[in-house]
Amino acid sequence: MPEFLKLQPPFIALNNFLSTIPKSKPETEEINTIDGLMRVLAQDFYSPNPLPEFPRSTVDGYAVISAHTHGSSESIPAILKMIGESPMGKPSAMTVGEGQAILIHTGGMIPTGADAVVMLENSQLNNGSDLEVFKPVSVNENVILVGEDVSTGDLVIPAGRVLRPVEIGGLMSFGVTRIQVNKKPKVGILSSGDEVIPPAQKPSIGQVRDINTSTMSAIVIEAGGEPVPYPLIGDKEEALTKSVIQAFNECDMVLITAGSSASTRDLTSLVIEKLGKPGILAHGVNVKPGKPTILAVCDGKPVIGLPGNPVSALVIADIFVRPAIRKLLHVSDPQFKPVVEGRLIGNFSSAAGREDWVPVVLRATNQENEVEPIFFKSNLIFNLVRANALLHIPADVTGVQAGEIVQVEIL
Amino acid sequence: MPEFLKLQPPFIALNNFLSTIPKSKPETEEINTIDGLMRVLAQDFYSPNPLPEFPRSTVDGYAVISAHTHGSSESIPAILKMIGESPMGKPSAMTVGEGQAILIHTGGMIPTGADAVVMLENSQLNNGSDLEVFKPVSVNENVILVGEDVSTGDLVIPAGRVLRPVEIGGLMSFGVTRIQVNKKPKVGILSSGDEVIPPAQKPSIGQVRDINTSTMSAIVIEAGGEPVPYPLIGDKEEALTKSVIQAFNECDMVLITAGSSASTRDLTSLVIEKLGKPGILAHGVNVKPGKPTILAVCDGKPVIGLPGNPVSALVIADIFVRPAIRKLLHVSDPQFKPVVEGRLIGNFSSAAGREDWVPVVLRATNQENEVEPIFFKSNLIFNLVRANALLHIPADVTGVQAGEIVQVEIL
Repeated sequence: MPEFLKLQPPFIALNNFLSTIPKSKPETEEINTIDGLMRVLAQDFYSPNPLPEFPRSTVDGYAVISAHTHGSSESIPAILKMIGESPMGKPSAMTVGEGQAILIHTGGMIPTGADAVVMLENSQLNNGSDLEVFKPVSVNENVILVGEDVSTGDLVIPAGRVLRPVEIGGLMSFGVTRIQVNKKPKVGILSSGDEVIPPAQKPSIGQVRDINTSTMSAIVIEAGGEPVPYPLIGDKEEALTKSVIQAFNECDMVLITAGSSASTRDLTSLVIEKLGKPGILAHGVNVKPGKPTILAVCDGKPVIGLPGNPVSALVIADIFVRPAIRKLLHVSDPQFKPVVEGRLIGNFSSAAGREDWVPVVLRATNQENEVEPIFFKSNLIFNLVRANALLHIPADVTGVQAGEIVQVEIL
Repeated sequence: MPEFLKLQPPFIALNNFLSTIPKSKPETEEINTIDGLMRVLAQDFYSPNPLPEFPRSTVDGYAVISAHTHGSSESIPAILKMIGESPMGKPSAMTVGEGQAILIHTGGMIPTGADAVVMLENSQLNNGSDLEVFKPVSVNENVILVGEDVSTGDLVIPAGRVLRPVEIGGLMSFGVTRIQVNKKPKVGILSSGDEVIPPAQKPSIGQVRDINTSTMSAIVIEAGGEPVPYPLIGDKEEALTKSVIQAFNECDMVLITAGSSASTRDLTSLVIEKLGKPGILAHGVNVKPGKPTILAVCDGKPVIGLPGNPVSALVIADIFVRPAIRKLLHVSDPQFKPVVEGRLIGNFSSAAGREDWVPVVLRATNQENEVEPIFFKSNLIFNLVRANALLHIPADVTGVQAGEIVQVEIL
């Protein structure tokens, strides 16, 4: 029974794996901007015109010549003549002249002649047209100038941006209702094991229903890919090879969740080695759960052999599958891992040099959050269903103690 | 020009708003479990059978009678007779008797007679059948017993759970391929303003393209709702009333992004008051940006008047729209706000008693994360496009200083 050749630290394994995936140009497709949520913009977007396109008021008030308000105060207001109202949605027909003011609403166009807006709160209108101004304004005060948001030709959304509601709005502000996005990478999903049967079937004694095809499909969707599930395969080299080669030819990336015994894991590596160069980059990573992971790049396509245990497979998917899909999608945004802090109840020990991911229950109490590790004999799927967060214990830490403040990642 | 009656602290306004939305039973629909990602489970799910359904090995090794390994060590191994291999996917035809062992793989069924599994690493097989065991095992060691993950009748997934990959896998492990989920609440979206035109049109001078319908639709989708956009309406009471009443009748919740001037905001509140009791709960909240927000519950349906400024509308949507949709969806999971820590570069001052949400750029440097506030004259949409996080300054803090470690929420 061959041992894992060398357990790689997951961070190093990930970097090596990602840098071996070539930076080939992804295929693109045109979609409605309104359907663009979470899609990845294919090309740099430069502003075709300035925004705003006309000078606008940022407040409700009076458009004035700023110099005419200088020296004004509550006790000695500046006195101006209100000559009319600036309409919304079109330019004012009137011009602000010496000693004049025009009523203007937030977002309205600054009339010719005016160079600032006095806020309603700092003024009082008497007899319908006599305006008292109690506070001076400076040039451009309460005004957004043409191009103050963006100038023509600015790079406003870079290629590789994952589109959020705000980018969809930003594109709409330029009238861009169709966009080019990177196609979702097709991720082939294969699950193997003589004991594994499709979920819709009733297991005989000794059999279990396949979980990994469903969980991996869901992970791929979350990460922005398109899952392509293949039929279950037994632990026979010929059948596995045939199915893996088909998935490899039809998809941009392949996930193989092996049967959980050492012999079927060896079978998986044997089959992956046939797919192309450079082949297997890591055979075993120093993380628990998830040690028996295979990372490979074959003829430019990432191929990952995942542990058969569903919980291990989910942890490994977070560490390796999601970043690989981001790379295939050409996502350019930096990635941060947001955390929630809480006080640990219960100790947890970890082997030196090994990364641990511990399912925990995060609970809000009146005072602070509580983090309770879920102890388990093996990685049972419903332990992870009970958990709402993962506690990460880095390789250089050998354990955490009850009472410590720890940071957890929401699941 | 009427002032806002009273600016409510956003936390109090939110609590009051949410508790006024009645807890009526949501409509449900049946879907394929595999399509259940991010949907909300309608009913408590109890396990129909134990998991696992048969005792399984958690390791590769030998099924033994634990008592026969007692006292064994590297120097004085226990000597057993290996009588065969337990097949994957079916029960072993053989029984482990006195002094016997059966080869077993991870996930395999424990053969009759055995009560523990010796790991491969702690044993050596000689001449094909003479097994040396170097380390004793206790009863049930490396064995998962029937029902050790879940027992029959356990509440394993509560109603109101937002389904993650792991729940989809958990349901599949029971063969549950169809599930009842809560229907997505229909959220009517109305955008008003005489200066606002549909994105596909070319604006004349003084006009701007509508952003809010698109951003709010995207927010509603992210939050698990179904956006129902209505045509743009001008600032006329009759047209606005007609359109709002239509949306109110057709949807479970209504968002109205008013024109940004004070008079159109007043118009919005006038129209909302006509919809039903109790009506407006908050008219103005003490948050920047987003002060001119209207929160209402009319005849059981939440109605929110959002500021016309797109950035203010997005901040308010995060604070009020998302939680309201969660309430309509009957989500039962507690909510935590994950954060990323970084060192602030640049100061930011805030009025006492007011919550501030400041768009920032979060950057990873070699040492630590850097948080740079984006300063802006007004809330221009592309300032938010440039940001990747929000810095929250609570009401009791009057400012933050360069060099401080702050926590930001990823946008």
